[in-house]
Amino acid sequence: MEVTERIIVESGLLFSKYGIRSMTMDALAEEMGISKRTIYERFKDKDTLLLEVVRYFKQERTKEAHKIIEESGNAIEAMFRIMKVTITQIEQMNPLFFHDFKKYHTRVFKQFFDPGEIRDYSVTLNLLETGVKQKVFRSDIHIDIVNRTLHELFDLFGHDSSLINAGYRHKQMFDHIIIPYYRGISTEKGMALLNEFKSILD
Amino acid sequence: MEVTERIIVESGLLFSKYGIRSMTMDALAEEMGISKRTIYERFKDKDTLLLEVVRYFKQERTKEAHKIIEESGNAIEAMFRIMKVTITQIEQMNPLFFHDFKKYHTRVFKQFFDPGEIRDYSVTLNLLETGVKQKVFRSDIHIDIVNRTLHELFDLFGHDSSLINAGYRHKQMFDHIIIPYYRGISTEKGMALLNEFKSILD
Repeated sequence: MEVTERIIVESGLLFSKYGIRSMTMDALAEEMGISKRTIYERFKDKDTLLLEVVRYFKQERTKEAHKIIEESGNAIEAMFRIMKVTITQIEQMNPLFFHDFKKYHTRVFKQFFDPGEIRDYSVTLNLLETGVKQKVFRSDIHIDIVNRTLHELFDLFGHDSSLINAGYRHKQMFDHIIIPYYRGISTEKGMALLNEFKSILD
Repeated sequence: MEVTERIIVESGLLFSKYGIRSMTMDALAEEMGISKRTIYERFKDKDTLLLEVVRYFKQERTKEAHKIIEESGNAIEAMFRIMKVTITQIEQMNPLFFHDFKKYHTRVFKQFFDPGEIRDYSVTLNLLETGVKQKVFRSDIHIDIVNRTLHELFDLFGHDSSLINAGYRHKQMFDHIIIPYYRGISTEKGMALLNEFKSILD
């Protein structure tokens, strides 16, 4: 792994373990056993580094999700497995990561989490197209409208959503928001698979 | 009908026919055959009048919707009939009404249309509870989460939504956003009714 990529990967792991704020450029350099200058030669400031970190891990997750779709028996199983991986990854992160990200790196945060900004629709698109081919999703669904709607529904899991503010937990919301919408675009075969595979998340 | 109510009702009809801007307080008084002073004694300015107008018509529509639920054979039929009435009412209004409302009465507009502001959840709540009793909706749905989700989905029909900006029409969005979510919370009986009654909107 070349130095730039190594800095990105290791910074990401350190941020997710200790939060962003406590990991100063000095601390990062020390932890990685390199000079601070080596970092600054490649990233002009922490915001730039953070942006590359988030971009890198997002790309990795996207690749992983496409691989899950390819390897799963059907789109419904894949959807649950991707969800499981995502939840596990978030749970393994220090909550300070999200706290610091939102509070001290607002510009980068907005760029990544604001609805309608840089957003990867390719995984859900793949899922929907694969599911239609497998006759798991109805052939009459409008792929682009459904894809956008899914992302609008995912946004309800964000920090400022009315449902989060009302005190609902992610699992509950998943069961009563995401699952019903998937059920609604499913064929009978798809609905049966939803019942069969939902225990992946238990 | 007492004078205050008459002013509200007639102003509402005039606004919806000609838009809000062209209907000055002078024009309103003339059309109603009353003095401008009679209006100003009851409403200190046009914003105040407009707020009462919108509130009044909203209450009327809410009452009407509850009546439709009571009189319909089932919650699915009621849902389609309420949607039909709403669409017809909006289509009969001069587009200038919404244009003027948003442009010249921003404060009142935001108060009424912003997600999470004064918002009537009672009609959808009644629909969901009635549907569960009728075994049209699944008994395991979380009524409050589903109700909030429906309103989040309704918000996608608003002026600034990503789907509207992508050029989709309301009917298309209704077919691929609202109907699937209702299908997803429906029992088999409910799904059959969705197919049976969807032609109400054609």
